[in-house]
Amino acid sequence: MSAVQLLLVAGTHGNEINAPWLIDQWAQNPNLINTNGLQVHKVIGNPAALQLGKRYLDRDLNRSFSVDLFADSSSRDFEISRAIELLSLYGSEGRSPCQIVIDLHSTTAAMGSSLVVYGRRPSDLALASLVQSQLGLPIYLHEGDNSQRGFLVESWPCGFVIEIGPVSQGMLHERIIQQTKLILEILFMGILEIQLGKNIYPDHLIVHRHLQSIDFPRNDKGEINAFIHSELQGKDWIPLRKEAPLFLGFHGEVFKFKGEPGTVPVFINEVAYAEKKIALSLTKREVWPFQNDWIDALDPLLKYYNNHPHIHVNSSLLQGRSLLFPFSQ
Amino acid sequence: MSAVQLLLVAGTHGNEINAPWLIDQWAQNPNLINTNGLQVHKVIGNPAALQLGKRYLDRDLNRSFSVDLFADSSSRDFEISRAIELLSLYGSEGRSPCQIVIDLHSTTAAMGSSLVVYGRRPSDLALASLVQSQLGLPIYLHEGDNSQRGFLVESWPCGFVIEIGPVSQGMLHERIIQQTKLILEILFMGILEIQLGKNIYPDHLIVHRHLQSIDFPRNDKGEINAFIHSELQGKDWIPLRKEAPLFLGFHGEVFKFKGEPGTVPVFINEVAYAEKKIALSLTKREVWPFQNDWIDALDPLLKYYNNHPHIHVNSSLLQGRSLLFPFSQ
Repeated sequence: MSAVQLLLVAGTHGNEINAPWLIDQWAQNPNLINTNGLQVHKVIGNPAALQLGKRYLDRDLNRSFSVDLFADSSSRDFEISRAIELLSLYGSEGRSPCQIVIDLHSTTAAMGSSLVVYGRRPSDLALASLVQSQLGLPIYLHEGDNSQRGFLVESWPCGFVIEIGPVSQGMLHERIIQQTKLILEILFMGILEIQLGKNIYPDHLIVHRHLQSIDFPRNDKGEINAFIHSELQGKDWIPLRKEAPLFLGFHGEVFKFKGEPGTVPVFINEVAYAEKKIALSLTKREVWPFQNDWIDALDPLLKYYNNHPHIHVNSSLLQGRSLLFPFSQ
Repeated sequence: MSAVQLLLVAGTHGNEINAPWLIDQWAQNPNLINTNGLQVHKVIGNPAALQLGKRYLDRDLNRSFSVDLFADSSSRDFEISRAIELLSLYGSEGRSPCQIVIDLHSTTAAMGSSLVVYGRRPSDLALASLVQSQLGLPIYLHEGDNSQRGFLVESWPCGFVIEIGPVSQGMLHERIIQQTKLILEILFMGILEIQLGKNIYPDHLIVHRHLQSIDFPRNDKGEINAFIHSELQGKDWIPLRKEAPLFLGFHGEVFKFKGEPGTVPVFINEVAYAEKKIALSLTKREVWPFQNDWIDALDPLLKYYNNHPHIHVNSSLLQGRSLLFPFSQ
């Protein structure tokens, strides 16, 4: 049995330059991040766009992983071809098959360090919980949004997005780089501990479940005619109170929040989302009891693991629920 | 004698969208900003780039106002043609000749509200002092930098740049818009008061004189291999102490400031300047006594003024140094 292969994608959006820079530094200094023996493949998602400092050439690569798009040979945008190429290289049936993918992003919104999971795949929830339990960071559960499909991580058996902000597009920023590095180290350590049979899963997972996205107010011609209210700007993850101001028009009119108090806004004023007609998204914070079937889903993927020759395994690590993860030799 | 004509340029860089948005709102609501009867022409500097959300198409428009470039017909980049077009439209010998130009910018650096003047043209210093005396904002005096030439405002008899940040490229941001609007209102009011014969010039002008720009540390291949130190990020206008950290390399090496303590950094981590090999610029804060010859230079331009039919002029406004500005009828 071969070891689990993890794919790390940086620069899926070519104007998010901190993760590609980290990957580049890592290539020059292999000791920069300790993978604990985990097999990690690193790839720049959209090198052509990165070269140009643009988010994409023809279309958003992170909305291009869709069999419908792949099947439509009449519209072969650059990013659709690149999506197919990435799958042929690193897809679970590709040349170097990977079972887990981590897609590294940054945002102009004040998201801090956060994870994004798509749908409710049990293996994703198990993997994300390994990070949340250590760092306490928030998880945005993107689901039920028919206007947005074709996310990269959905094309692998398991994976999530690491999303960090705020940072300007194209800006190299120490905080973003260090936060990305920290989450990766925590993740790699978590995977190792699970493989060693330790149970480090939490009792519960806190998710911010997607409810809907909200566009900017627009005039009759479809042009934006109000901006994010100064009381909302930068307040990602902070629950909205009743009638909280969302937008301010130039004549002083305030567009107020009409939904349920306690709703949590995310991706407020992410520049790249304006073209998608998203000024912010609304979520509901939910505490979910940890489910054993999440482990059952992640376990077969991590079982690809064979050996860490340099690691001495203490049999005391193999107690309790850890028996679910036999240390295969 | 015809009235002084002021040209307001927004979107000289197509990814700085707040000023164009303000101009657009103003067109829809002519009462949005009170010009006090001043003749103001508004133009989008680079509409093609604004449409694409890019800084420029071929080259930086705000480095394209150079007779050398105009004379070289072999290289007719889009922006050079646009520079010639803007001058033929609004240059002092153009179709709608303007005597004063204000160029509206934003930056990813934490510059707050600031002005940039180029060289030491007395008329610019007089005009900038009208704003500084009311708002106390800092002025960056860009001079003696042979690597950067061809700024837009230098092609008009008088003018400066309004530079506001931090804001991500492409992000509509209430603070940026309101700060831009406030400076324009203060400027228009200041011009009116001078025309009415009031002496509202300050006793002194504080400038931050350009000393040099500093590139990122780079490796042998010319690639950036350190980032702005977290102690410096966002600290524009704050004097550097001895050996202040400037950059942090990924192996933990700190690149320290070796210059004179008290030197003031500006444009720290402006994204668009990385391609110009500028990580930050260094300035020296200087307090200059206000010079009467600055007034002598601005006065003939403002004398284009003829009448404000709706304004009652109180003769008491015409006392003291204000006599330098006869109220021409």
